[in-house]
Order: sequence, then structure tokens, then C-alpha cells
Amino acid sequence: MMDTTPRKEQIFQTAGAMFSRQGYHATTMRDIARELNMQGGSLYAHIDSKEDVLWEIVERAAAQFLESVRPLAGLPLPASARLRRMLAAHVDVVTRNLDNATVFFHEWRFLGPARRAHIAAQRDEYEALFRRVIQDGVAAGEFPGADARMGALLVLSAGNWLYQWFRPDGALSAAAVAAQMADVIIAGLRCVE
Amino acid sequence: MMDTTPRKEQIFQTAGAMFSRQGYHATTMRDIARELNMQGGSLYAHIDSKEDVLWEIVERAAAQFLESVRPLAGLPLPASARLRRMLAAHVDVVTRNLDNATVFFHEWRFLGPARRAHIAAQRDEYEALFRRVIQDGVAAGEFPGADARMGALLVLSAGNWLYQWFRPDGALSAAAVAAQMADVIIAGLRCVE
Repeated sequence: MMDTTPRKEQIFQTAGAMFSRQGYHATTMRDIARELNMQGGSLYAHIDSKEDVLWEIVERAAAQFLESVRPLAGLPLPASARLRRMLAAHVDVVTRNLDNATVFFHEWRFLGPARRAHIAAQRDEYEALFRRVIQDGVAAGEFPGADARMGALLVLSAGNWLYQWFRPDGALSAAAVAAQMADVIIAGLRCVE
Repeated sequence: MMDTTPRKEQIFQTAGAMFSRQGYHATTMRDIARELNMQGGSLYAHIDSKEDVLWEIVERAAAQFLESVRPLAGLPLPASARLRRMLAAHVDVVTRNLDNATVFFHEWRFLGPARRAHIAAQRDEYEALFRRVIQDGVAAGEFPGADARMGALLVLSAGNWLYQWFRPDGALSAAAVAAQMADVIIAGLRCVE
């Protein structure tokens, strides 16, 4: 019996890198097959359509974000400590696979309507985790003058924009970047009036 | 004598919207011509290549950012007041034409090497304006514990990521968003240790 899992993973990895580099619409199934030294037809033994590949990449990324951050949001810690860990986890997901993060941020809008709605709902749930923790901080007096919506936007803008400039071989590790970002944003949430 | 300027502007506008919506690589000159009800060939009476259109859009955006922000960086005001105005100007450029901002952020990397290097140099110059103002704030004791590089990254991450979520018909105006962002980031730069 042939195990097709590794081949399928190769397809997702190669497609993720190609979608990231040149965009979903500019990448054909034939391009992906060629990159993998496969016949175009044999690609379809593993996957049904190019949109299914996009869906797999985007859905996995959304799940990674939620599964990494959700448990941290409910820890019995002050809001600032939870927020710091949540941002670190977010940055870790983005930087662990920059290609897939790029596809998640740029290309998810090319999914069909039902799948796009599913991802939009997951993004809403994810943003709400950050808003709620900041709201907890407001209620507890840690962030007395903060606006939870703007605070969550700042955290996620900083964490997301990383995919554009972060280089794994750069001077700062992902963890160091996340810690420095958290320092400034948490100071801002504490001190803003 | 026929004035071709308005036609050329239409081409840039239409191409900007199409590059933003579906990506540079997935948009052909034929697509742009069809959208404008032109013959593919007559498009070439106005422009030489698709890359020239991308270049025009990206180069204009880079110039808009620099021309809007550079004069503010040197104003005889405290660093926090300059930074607030610079972020407002940045947000104004992004939100005034979201399609062109999207093309500027996503598609500039598809320019040829010389043009890409030119834009990269302009981006470096632009980021340096923000770093220097924050550095002024550090020197003046306004931002005693701040790191200029991380501060500039936060300002630009927040200002850039707007192109993903800002809706002109949303609850907050671009100016209100910029002001709220500035409140938190400047508080963070003041209070961070």
C-alpha cells in the first residue's frame, strides 16, 4: 500500500512557497507539478483542485493561530502577562512559516465564498481573544485608559506586518522581536489616557 | 492635437484596481484593455509594458509617502507632536487610495531589479525619517526608554496594515484611526522602560 501523505505534504509546501512568491492566481497546477517533477495529471491523484490546496494552507494557518493563542487567553495571569504570551505565540506562528503566513494574509480572499466566510469567522474569533484580554486589563485597572479594539488592532498589525520584513537570519530572533513589541504596546496600553 | 493624459490616468487607475484585486502576475495587458473597452494594441500607444504601469503606480505611491511625511519630520515641534502628524499623513496616503497602497505593499517586489532597488532605497529613507524623530525624542527625554528601530516598526506596521482592514465607509474616519493609534504608540514610547 502506498502512503500518499508525504507526497501530499510536499504539494502543500511547494504550493505554499509558489503562492507566496508569485500569487495564487499566477500559479497553475501545471506549475506546481513541474516544480515537483510530477506529471500534471498525477497531481490530481492527490488533490482535487488548486483551490483545495489554498484552502488547506489557509485553514491550517488559521487553526495554528487559534490553537496557539486560545489557551493563553484564559490563563490565570494579569492581562499584560497574557497579552505578552499571546503576541509571542502569534509571532511564532507567523515566523515559523513565512510563506504560509504570506498566503494566509494575501491569498485567502481568493477562496470561494463559503470557505472565505469560514476563515473570516475564525479571524473574528481570533481578534476577539485579544480584545477580551485587553478589556480584562481595562476592568482590572491595568490598562485604565485603553480602547480594547484599537489595542487589539495594534497588537495584530505589529504581529502580522512581520511577514513583510522579518528575516530568519536577521539580527533579532522572533522571540526577541515579540518581546520588544510587547514592551512598547503594553506600556502604551498602561499609560494611554 | 489629442491630449492623451486623461486616458493614461484611466489606465493607471484601472490597472491599480486590477493589480490590487487579483495581483500583478494574474492581470494581463489584454485584461486591462478589456476593462477600459480598448483594443489591446491601442493600450501600447500609451504605455510600453505592464511593468511600466506597475512602476508608475509604485513610484507615485513612494513619492506620496515621502512628500507627505518628510516636511513634517523637520518641524520645530517636540518629537511626539511630529510623530503624531507623520502617522496621520501616512494613514492619509494609505487610505486615500487603498488599491494603490495594496499594489505598493504587495506587488512592488515584481518590479525589475533596478526599479526594485530604487523603491527599496526610498522605503529605507522613509523608515529613517520615523527612526530619527523617535531618536530625537529619546535624546530630548520625551521617550527615555524607547528603541527607535522598534518604535518606527510599530508606527509603520500599524499604518501599513490598515490597507487590510480599513473601510472608507466604516465607523472611524482615517484621521480618527490615526489619532487613536498615535495615542497608544506615543504613550508606549513615553512609558516603556
